[in-house]
Amino acid sequence: MSENKTVEVMEAIYDKNEEVAKLTNADFTNKGILAINVIGAPGVGKTSVLCQIIKRLGPVKPYVIEGDIEADYDTKLLQALGVEAVQINTGGACHLDSPLIAEAAQEFTLQEGILFIENIGNLVCPAEFMIGEHAKLLITNVTEGSDKPYKYPLAFEKADLIVINKVDLLSYVDFDEEFFMAGVRALNKMAPVVKVSCKNEEGFEEIIKWLENKHASVKK
Amino acid sequence: MSENKTVEVMEAIYDKNEEVAKLTNADFTNKGILAINVIGAPGVGKTSVLCQIIKRLGPVKPYVIEGDIEADYDTKLLQALGVEAVQINTGGACHLDSPLIAEAAQEFTLQEGILFIENIGNLVCPAEFMIGEHAKLLITNVTEGSDKPYKYPLAFEKADLIVINKVDLLSYVDFDEEFFMAGVRALNKMAPVVKVSCKNEEGFEEIIKWLENKHASVKK
Repeated sequence: MSENKTVEVMEAIYDKNEEVAKLTNADFTNKGILAINVIGAPGVGKTSVLCQIIKRLGPVKPYVIEGDIEADYDTKLLQALGVEAVQINTGGACHLDSPLIAEAAQEFTLQEGILFIENIGNLVCPAEFMIGEHAKLLITNVTEGSDKPYKYPLAFEKADLIVINKVDLLSYVDFDEEFFMAGVRALNKMAPVVKVSCKNEEGFEEIIKWLENKHASVKK
Repeated sequence: MSENKTVEVMEAIYDKNEEVAKLTNADFTNKGILAINVIGAPGVGKTSVLCQIIKRLGPVKPYVIEGDIEADYDTKLLQALGVEAVQINTGGACHLDSPLIAEAAQEFTLQEGILFIENIGNLVCPAEFMIGEHAKLLITNVTEGSDKPYKYPLAFEKADLIVINKVDLLSYVDFDEEFFMAGVRALNKMAPVVKVSCKNEEGFEEIIKWLENKHASVKK
């Protein structure tokens, strides 16, 4: 297989994904649905952060699509809390794509609300593929170390909101916030950076306000 | 682009990778080099674990290839400790492949020792691609949660040694070791599972013994 052919196939996959992502995004907007692409490495606490957000949403209806290679623990957890949640298992694929989301979204009767799409735990590829979202919420945590923006720049560059989770562990780990923020701001001048602890249930007010503002712009 | 064409291209990429991996592995064996593919999510402490291992290797010579999307912090850290280390920056690719390793290995004058290849921080794709290694060392940590074997099965299935890092944080996080081990053993009956703390410099003896045994089988 020639390199040219390989590049051609890769580009076709990207183009198809972008096309479906735009249509899916327009469909969400028409329904008054704010779609959030939730990105982060394995074990940073994506589902825990979502649970904390969802219980503070007030009258705004949440929907969740959970992406995993295998298993459905997080979906069952959310459903047990009364949240409408759908599982996608990619089998092996390391990121979600827009055709998967377009299909999964049909399992809901979407009516004005916020759709959280929890991507596969991975700091690399999920940042490359639009999946119909209005915004990307990137979750990192203090145990991961402060060099992540330098090593995984695209995720930080494309994020619309950056959440630093597990700040309850700050005194037990080496997390250099100044170095972390310098890395973030070299890539991304705009995204708010919010520190939270799911364990202590702290820091979520700013996220809720940010989501309400974004949702208002979709509702028009 | 048809689905058949896409599958064909993907298979050609895999086949080429496997072919180069076998040649590279044979070359390492001929030189008395044990090659270890170090896999783990971003921030689990792959480089920290390597530093702890390397300073306990005694007369065995270590070499390191560091894989990152961008930046070379870990390579500089290792070089400052006197370790022969080479950086690979993939730009965007979410895993290393065997042609990259074959090329990077030429920057060393390899002579009997252990070559640690730190893969891109990612629990998904690095497990799929052979890169010339004799064994896979998977690193996880207690802050990631105990459901990782269930959600990222391939990495756990293919691991030859599993290291649980950051056990110094055990009393501050919810890590259910029994649930974790049940998940590991459903996928992988054989791989030793070793608990370590880089902070407290504890638990590395078993890893050193395991490496010495593996190295002996390559040296013959």
